[in-house]
Amino acid sequence: MSGRLLLIGIGCGDPEHLTLRAARAIAELDVLFVVTKGRGPDDELVGLRRELVRRHRPTGAPLREVELADPPRPWRTAPDYAEAVATWRAGRAALWRAALADIADGRTGGFLVWGDPSLYESTLAVVQEVREGLALELEVIPGVSSVHALTARHAIPLNRVGGAVQIMPARRLAAHGMPDGVDDVVVMLDPDCAFTALDPDGLDIHWGAFVGTPDELLLAGPLAQTGPRIVSARAAAKARKGWMFDLYLLRRR
Amino acid sequence: MSGRLLLIGIGCGDPEHLTLRAARAIAELDVLFVVTKGRGPDDELVGLRRELVRRHRPTGAPLREVELADPPRPWRTAPDYAEAVATWRAGRAALWRAALADIADGRTGGFLVWGDPSLYESTLAVVQEVREGLALELEVIPGVSSVHALTARHAIPLNRVGGAVQIMPARRLAAHGMPDGVDDVVVMLDPDCAFTALDPDGLDIHWGAFVGTPDELLLAGPLAQTGPRIVSARAAAKARKGWMFDLYLLRRR
Repeated sequence: MSGRLLLIGIGCGDPEHLTLRAARAIAELDVLFVVTKGRGPDDELVGLRRELVRRHRPTGAPLREVELADPPRPWRTAPDYAEAVATWRAGRAALWRAALADIADGRTGGFLVWGDPSLYESTLAVVQEVREGLALELEVIPGVSSVHALTARHAIPLNRVGGAVQIMPARRLAAHGMPDGVDDVVVMLDPDCAFTALDPDGLDIHWGAFVGTPDELLLAGPLAQTGPRIVSARAAAKARKGWMFDLYLLRRR
Repeated sequence: MSGRLLLIGIGCGDPEHLTLRAARAIAELDVLFVVTKGRGPDDELVGLRRELVRRHRPTGAPLREVELADPPRPWRTAPDYAEAVATWRAGRAALWRAALADIADGRTGGFLVWGDPSLYESTLAVVQEVREGLALELEVIPGVSSVHALTARHAIPLNRVGGAVQIMPARRLAAHGMPDGVDDVVVMLDPDCAFTALDPDGLDIHWGAFVGTPDELLLAGPLAQTGPRIVSARAAAKARKGWMFDLYLLRRR
C-alpha cells in the first residue's frame, strides 16, 4: 500500500485561478503540508489556503495540517557558507522526509503551491530529493503561473510571431542585461528593480504586483517613463503590505 | 452600452485543466466564437468544446455559435507572397470585426482558447487588431499552458535554481541551435523534429504529445537515446490521429 502526494498549483492569489482538478484534489487530501518561511507572505498564504479549503471541502471533512517550518537560511557571512547551506538543506530534507513518510501508509497528502509548481518554486525539487525509497505516488497538478496571470491582466501576448521568450531571475538581468536574440523577457524575483540599470531605449515594460489579488497593481509603457513610476509604486505598496510579489515583461519595440 | 469579449484559456485537453473563472465565463456567454482552420485538430477541438459547454452550462441555456472559418493561407509560392498574406489577413480581420461588432450591443461573446491565451496563440493578437473603435470590454482569462502541462506530467521543475528558461518555436532552434547562457529550452511548433540536428552530448529531452488527453505520450531521457524513440513514436501517433500537438524541454545536464 502506498500513499499519494499531490503538488497542487493554485494560481496566483485569485481563488478562481484554481483548476477543477486542483479543487478536486483539495477535497481528496487527508493531510495538508504547509511550508512556512517565517516572513512576508506566510500570513496571506494562510488566508488564501483557508479560503480554498473552506470552499472546496464542502462537507467540512477534517483536514490535518502539518507545518513544515523552514529553518532560517544561513547568513551569507557564515564562516563556511557552503557548509552552512549544506547543513540547512539536510535539516530541511530530514524534516520533509519524516513528514512524507508519515503518509506512505496509504493516505493522501498535498501541498498548495502558489502559481504553477514548475516555475521558480522549490517544493517540487525538494520533494523529488526526499521521496526516494518512500512508497509515494507523486502527482503534479499544473496551475496558472504568474507569467500568464501577468499577460492576461495586461491583455497582451507573451511572445511575438516566430519569436522566443525568456524567463529569468533578476540577478541574471543585472549581470548580463537583455539577452541577445530574444525580444521578450520576463523577469522574476527582483527586489532591487534591476530594470533601472538598463538602457531604456527601445524597451517597453509591462509590470504587475500582487496580480490576481485585490492589491493588484499594473503599469505599462515605455521603460524610460514607466520605470520610475514602477519604482515608486512598488516601494509604496511594499511599505504598506510588508512584502512584495511582482514580475514584469521587458519587450523590445 | 458595451459588449464583453472573453478570451478563455481552457488548458490543454484535460477538461479538468479548466479554471473556476473559465468555467464561470462559459456560463456567462451569449455567443461562442469558433475559429476553424479546416485542418487537423478542428474536430477534436469541437469535441472538447462541446464537452466543456455541456458541463458548465448546467441549465442548458442556449449558446449561439458563430463560426469564423480561416480562409486558406496563401501558398508560399504565390507570385507576390507578401501581398497575398496581406490580403489574407485583411479578409480575416474583416470577418472577425463584423462578428465582434455584432456583440457590441451589450452581449457577451467569447473564444475558448487552447492552453493559455498568451502563448503561441494568435486569437489575442487578432482581437486586439480588430476591436479598435468597437464598444467591447476585453477580459483575458489565463489558463494552464502546454508548457506547464508538460512539466507537470514529467514531474519536473521548468527552471533550475538561479537559471533562465527560454521558450521558442522550432524554426529558431533549427536556425541557431541551443541558445547561449540558457540551459533549459522549451521548443514548440516542431513538425520536423529539429532536435535531431543538435549535438546530443550533454542534453536531456522531456517530450510530450497530446499532453493531458487520453492520447498522451511522454518520453524522457538523454537526447542521444531518446531522440530516435521520439521520432518514431511521433510518426506513429501522427499517422494514427491525422495531426499532432507536441512540445519538449531540452535540458543541459
